[in-house]
Amino acid sequence: MSYFRKNIEAMTAYTPGEQPQGDAAVTKLNTNENPYPPSPRILAALRTLDPERLRKYPDPMADRVRDLVARRFDVRRRQVLCANGSDELLRMAVTAFVGEGDAIAYPVPTYSLYPVLAAVQGARTIEVASPDGFSLPADALAEAKARLLFLCNPNAPTGVWTEPPDIARLADRFKGVVVVDEAYADFGPGSGIPVLKAKPNVLVLRSLSKSYSLAGLRFGFAVGPEPLIAGLAKVKDSYNCDAVSIELAAAALEDEAAMRANVEKVRAERERLASRLAAMGFSVTPSEANFLLARVPGGDAEGCYEDLKARGILIRYWKGPRLADKLRITVGTPEENDRLLAALEACRKENRA
Amino acid sequence: MSYFRKNIEAMTAYTPGEQPQGDAAVTKLNTNENPYPPSPRILAALRTLDPERLRKYPDPMADRVRDLVARRFDVRRRQVLCANGSDELLRMAVTAFVGEGDAIAYPVPTYSLYPVLAAVQGARTIEVASPDGFSLPADALAEAKARLLFLCNPNAPTGVWTEPPDIARLADRFKGVVVVDEAYADFGPGSGIPVLKAKPNVLVLRSLSKSYSLAGLRFGFAVGPEPLIAGLAKVKDSYNCDAVSIELAAAALEDEAAMRANVEKVRAERERLASRLAAMGFSVTPSEANFLLARVPGGDAEGCYEDLKARGILIRYWKGPRLADKLRITVGTPEENDRLLAALEACRKENRA
Repeated sequence: MSYFRKNIEAMTAYTPGEQPQGDAAVTKLNTNENPYPPSPRILAALRTLDPERLRKYPDPMADRVRDLVARRFDVRRRQVLCANGSDELLRMAVTAFVGEGDAIAYPVPTYSLYPVLAAVQGARTIEVASPDGFSLPADALAEAKARLLFLCNPNAPTGVWTEPPDIARLADRFKGVVVVDEAYADFGPGSGIPVLKAKPNVLVLRSLSKSYSLAGLRFGFAVGPEPLIAGLAKVKDSYNCDAVSIELAAAALEDEAAMRANVEKVRAERERLASRLAAMGFSVTPSEANFLLARVPGGDAEGCYEDLKARGILIRYWKGPRLADKLRITVGTPEENDRLLAALEACRKENRA
Repeated sequence: MSYFRKNIEAMTAYTPGEQPQGDAAVTKLNTNENPYPPSPRILAALRTLDPERLRKYPDPMADRVRDLVARRFDVRRRQVLCANGSDELLRMAVTAFVGEGDAIAYPVPTYSLYPVLAAVQGARTIEVASPDGFSLPADALAEAKARLLFLCNPNAPTGVWTEPPDIARLADRFKGVVVVDEAYADFGPGSGIPVLKAKPNVLVLRSLSKSYSLAGLRFGFAVGPEPLIAGLAKVKDSYNCDAVSIELAAAALEDEAAMRANVEKVRAERERLASRLAAMGFSVTPSEANFLLARVPGGDAEGCYEDLKARGILIRYWKGPRLADKLRITVGTPEENDRLLAALEACRKENRA
């Protein structure tokens, strides 16, 4: 007999994108990091951190960051909860709202962590296929008999954006809690928080990993109605955010201009890269995130992924339905994107030869 | 109807000890921090951290730290799992081994987080009372019909140490997984890992919060048999340890001498403080941790706690059975301990007047 619960024994862990450690030669366009460094103020906060902060326990609620978030989004402190990355908030939402055997709904394709979190909890999943073009299947989701609905907006790995008023209408019809995962929202038209913060059953999650160039720091936060935030806080680890990340997250939120400048550069490159890929025969889904989902001409995306890897360029590939002929490419710096385009051109020529 | 699961709706969150932010005037002897600063090498690692580590995702498994732990305890890398504090590993053990309605056993009194983790999971608890003197009720625990057994060694809040061979014998008899929470073990006679690492059903958890003076960093690790570690890894958040904590944890483990020097100072003060408290009429439980559990002469521990707080000295007090007449006092520096002793003396005089 196994020591593990049956659902744990049966499940497969989430597979993160490759994270080569200290290999500067790799062009890393596989896990949606921001290609530009974080604000110099963040580095200054790191270099001047009071060592006493390491010795003592951190603020369990990270109130300093909560207050900055509250100011940015015009909500109260008690409508904000900080976490060790927004992945932690996704897991906490499952723990708080979904019992064993209960259901979690989400459109597919989407962030491949959601079914893993369901498996960890022993929960069922209701996967609703998105129509062609990957827009949100709102009607089917609204009627899903689930305790929790995950909506990634802009969606990953498609980059497709759903207008927040459409999510608000869906939330009005859905019987459970809607978690809007806005990890990439700073690269899109804007956050849904102003529209969604009045909804009693909506939590909006944000991450500092992408737009703030802080994937290594692990910092995210949730914004929602006070009762949902208070209940969610019950399931968090006592000191989930460390003292360094609290200081650096605060520095990040105090320098939104640096983030905006990086985001604008990424958006400009996103449009250039999309045009160039389209000119090469790729079919590119319009994206509001910092990545592109692109169908490979001829459809051999796996071969293309392997070719690029052999040339030192990492991108993301999934075998799943509707994704097996596509690549997900993180938008890099102009130089990185040019390297990618040149490598794709070289692959094409060799395959034709 | 609530959006939350019933067990979440019904439960009360864990209450951490008070963590005043930036109030240097307080003598903080309430949450078992180490009174001495961490190794200078750790601070150097913080000051020289490559900013690229902030921008990119961290190593999902923190292999650099796993290898250092493996070397220290003479195990293989795959017998080690790193986490955002050992609290995270406690929660992960519940998730991995205990379904809704299953039971978790532990002796009482012990770390007050264990019942909270059970409540979060919707699990039952089997609480086995320790005999007078707070030694381990091994026979009753061995027979508990539970999936998981939590043993804090040295125990909190008593400081009582159980010899690792006794835990090994208990593990042979217990049908589920035994998690030995060694957060304080560096202050005691030594780790149980050499004795327990051969057991198929034992995980030993360690923390850098206490002996390494890194409570603010949130870093812990588990050592155990490969199948348990592999299954436990399935339930962890994808990037649970941030890039800063990985670098600093590695620096900490590379300078064990600094930790040992701090531990020796704390141990010497522990014995001095225990003698002085005993001379004042306190009944002090012999401790192998960095704190003392002491019965207040006359039994009014709550009044004593409040008196001390009014004098700017924080210690820990619980109303629970067998604890209501006692205080838990973290061992501080000689100056901090003298301040505590003087305050206790002053309280006593005023109460007599």
